[in-house]
Amino acid sequence: MPATAYDAEKFFRGLTDAGLIVPVGVPGIFGRNHVFEDVLERFNALVNEIAKADGADYFVYPPTMSRSVLEQSGFLDNFPNLAGTVFSFNGKELTARQLSEAIHNGEDWERYENMTEMALNPASCYPVYPTFTGTVPREGKLVTVLNWVFRREPSREPTRMQSFRMREFVRCGTPEQVVEWRDMWLERGLRLLQSLQLPVVAEVASDPFFGRIGKMLADSQREQKLKFEVTAPMISEENRTALCSFNFHQDHFGQAFHIRTEDGNVANTACLGIGLERVVMALFQTHGFDPENWPSEVHDKLWVPTQHARA
Amino acid sequence: MPATAYDAEKFFRGLTDAGLIVPVGVPGIFGRNHVFEDVLERFNALVNEIAKADGADYFVYPPTMSRSVLEQSGFLDNFPNLAGTVFSFNGKELTARQLSEAIHNGEDWERYENMTEMALNPASCYPVYPTFTGTVPREGKLVTVLNWVFRREPSREPTRMQSFRMREFVRCGTPEQVVEWRDMWLERGLRLLQSLQLPVVAEVASDPFFGRIGKMLADSQREQKLKFEVTAPMISEENRTALCSFNFHQDHFGQAFHIRTEDGNVANTACLGIGLERVVMALFQTHGFDPENWPSEVHDKLWVPTQHARA
Repeated sequence: MPATAYDAEKFFRGLTDAGLIVPVGVPGIFGRNHVFEDVLERFNALVNEIAKADGADYFVYPPTMSRSVLEQSGFLDNFPNLAGTVFSFNGKELTARQLSEAIHNGEDWERYENMTEMALNPASCYPVYPTFTGTVPREGKLVTVLNWVFRREPSREPTRMQSFRMREFVRCGTPEQVVEWRDMWLERGLRLLQSLQLPVVAEVASDPFFGRIGKMLADSQREQKLKFEVTAPMISEENRTALCSFNFHQDHFGQAFHIRTEDGNVANTACLGIGLERVVMALFQTHGFDPENWPSEVHDKLWVPTQHARA
Repeated sequence: MPATAYDAEKFFRGLTDAGLIVPVGVPGIFGRNHVFEDVLERFNALVNEIAKADGADYFVYPPTMSRSVLEQSGFLDNFPNLAGTVFSFNGKELTARQLSEAIHNGEDWERYENMTEMALNPASCYPVYPTFTGTVPREGKLVTVLNWVFRREPSREPTRMQSFRMREFVRCGTPEQVVEWRDMWLERGLRLLQSLQLPVVAEVASDPFFGRIGKMLADSQREQKLKFEVTAPMISEENRTALCSFNFHQDHFGQAFHIRTEDGNVANTACLGIGLERVVMALFQTHGFDPENWPSEVHDKLWVPTQHARA
């Protein structure tokens, strides 16, 4: 029985009333309490466990990244509306006083801020590609990251956040290597979420490319089956919510960041991203707001007595 | 023996060569590898352990916060130069094309971005104060958070980061309650870091208030002993680096966020912040870049066989 019968407002209220999230007055931004975090950490440890034998290199990157890397990645051509850039004040004392006065008078103070060399990271994998620049070894590369990401998508749906954590795995190598790996993870991701008794399915998907040209890019992405998502009904039964996405980029990032395979060709990449907060919310949505009352198989899978593997 | 004899450049190169950090081309922004993260998580678990009996409520907030809360807090009056605000694009298709072209032509594209309702969180405790609004119970309140924070301080010193994690405890109540608590933690923090054989001392400190008026504020803060830091020599023997800070805010946040104690007075607050990356770096600096070669008492304290307490 879904906790909220697929109603975004009720789900948000339910999470808030249970103390699991703490609204801060900005849509898509909220605190998470210790129960929410415990579920998130334990699910993430489960991911470590099932991926351990693959031997991915683990890194954590800050929420802010190099703006020039974001420019180079092509993100701003395709999703200019979703990006966040970091601005700051670099004036002197008099201007600082004017800035302060503007704030106290409730005036706009946008003009006192200037663009910095940083942007907010829109997906965990963006800082990873520049580290592949050059020639990757015959067996390719495999990296995993857990970063805070930003998407400019203010919404009252609790599952559509502006700041959230994305656990990602990134594969780089020949087209065969990365597609085989992507397909393996699609199966694995589905099985993992099914083992937690979440009502998930895999489906072909597309990215929210901007504008009319974006519509064409999305159609082409869908036709070529470059993107799959594992989805669950969360705020509506018809419009399912993606918990994970599996993306084959072909040579997009290989070109952008000058990555080659041993045969001299431009390297291909694929990534899979797990929306950690969304998985946690899907568990609350499906099994109720109190983990103590979850089905015992689900509870035991997360609260096993042995310590979970670290990444 | 310090790993680098107090030299910022050598320390940065040492951390990079050991693979512990991954530079991304922006000063104060870098990736952390699995060894770095493991030490950070284990140290954070130690903090959980020593603080467990206090029963603090644990929350995690995103790296982005409500801009209006930051305005209300007074941060921008005192540290306008350190704040980061989030800007984004909200134009239509034609403007998006111009933005994209500007980027490809290597032109400035600042004018396409507009201020949003979000800022970067400059200290873990800022999202906490609005949750205290109203009358706090007789015993006061105690909250702990672990958030990514932002400070606009580009620097080649590895210990001076623009994005980093700050574990904080925040106490709210009568002046006596918060000062007693702050003093208890000053002792406790010092003992914790000494138990890891770090060459730490406690000293009176001040915040980097902006401008000439800021100089006066800093002097007054120092005279009233409102701020203490636990410091270690990291990039220089003379200019020690703060690993933790202990701050008595008097009624500053109580006034700003309308917090009262049961007797009807404006509530007082204090916080203590632990710079997690700085503690990790102090361990590498003091004991060397490979935790396997650390003194066994230090190693055992972090890699104990029993699972550490969760927050």
